[in-house]
Amino acid sequence: MARRLFSFVGSNTGRWQVTRMETCIGTPLEQVSFVNVVEEDVPLAQVAWVLRGVTSYERYVNKAEQQLLISVQPAIGRPQATCAALIPIKKSVVWWNLPQDERRAILEEQSHHIQTGVQYLPAVARRLHHGHDLGEPFDFLTWFEYAPEDAEAFERLAGELRGTEEWDYVDREIDIRLVRD
Amino acid sequence: MARRLFSFVGSNTGRWQVTRMETCIGTPLEQVSFVNVVEEDVPLAQVAWVLRGVTSYERYVNKAEQQLLISVQPAIGRPQATCAALIPIKKSVVWWNLPQDERRAILEEQSHHIQTGVQYLPAVARRLHHGHDLGEPFDFLTWFEYAPEDAEAFERLAGELRGTEEWDYVDREIDIRLVRD
Repeated sequence: MARRLFSFVGSNTGRWQVTRMETCIGTPLEQVSFVNVVEEDVPLAQVAWVLRGVTSYERYVNKAEQQLLISVQPAIGRPQATCAALIPIKKSVVWWNLPQDERRAILEEQSHHIQTGVQYLPAVARRLHHGHDLGEPFDFLTWFEYAPEDAEAFERLAGELRGTEEWDYVDREIDIRLVRD
Repeated sequence: MARRLFSFVGSNTGRWQVTRMETCIGTPLEQVSFVNVVEEDVPLAQVAWVLRGVTSYERYVNKAEQQLLISVQPAIGRPQATCAALIPIKKSVVWWNLPQDERRAILEEQSHHIQTGVQYLPAVARRLHHGHDLGEPFDFLTWFEYAPEDAEAFERLAGELRGTEEWDYVDREIDIRLVRD
């Protein structure tokens, strides 16, 4: 995926209304009522926070998984997908010091991260933003979009991932749920 | 490796004097007489260019390779290493769209990039800086340091890598050679 920079802006106004904001692991993020998703760098002024990340090349997905994902994953912005989740995550120093093959093994062979996500396609659209190399407070900002009738399925997906070995390497996680008109 | 941002500043003054600057592939970079290496973000003002990159986690190295590298790779800044090379590289869209396993296979199983580099250790110190996610003009800035008596060995290393399949995916490459007192 081509590099595109996105800013997630938390404040008291915006397109997406926050219905729930929960600190799962580590330091909380200031509570806000709205989040805006902007495809550019937004300065931190008159807002509570700005989280930045870039779409980027695949770090773990192999050829077969890539072809499967391309064939079933829906686009962001479907009219019926009025629910969203923004899940910022920071992984530990231990994780980042692991070699590539061990990170892949933990993520997929042991935690089935990719395989689990595929089971919720095409109901749940997903876009991953990388913040590690930008020096952002979160390594990943994952943005999910789904229809209200798929909200329960999304809860299962989030719950399944949090129960995996991969999550032992998560140092900070915030779960922000949103709706739009 | 922990994330650290470096700026490589090309101008008419600095610590490292340019002895040769050559465009290997693609669009040239403005000729300069000196390069400074600065561990912070440097604004583009009164200099010819600033290239930025971050040290980051391993993208391809497996456990055995990581242990080997840690055991033999020297530090940057050895007193006798008065020669350096700065090699900015941009890879093609085709490369970045490949899944992880295919990029790894091209880089190592077919091109022996890691294995070739190991053969020149500990003579040639190396630090890799990633610019892709920063939106920089180059995806990689590799900085090499070696003693004058290892200059010939370094030429062989650079030549070997340029002859590999991996280099078919290089869209732009500049080779800058430097010395310091």
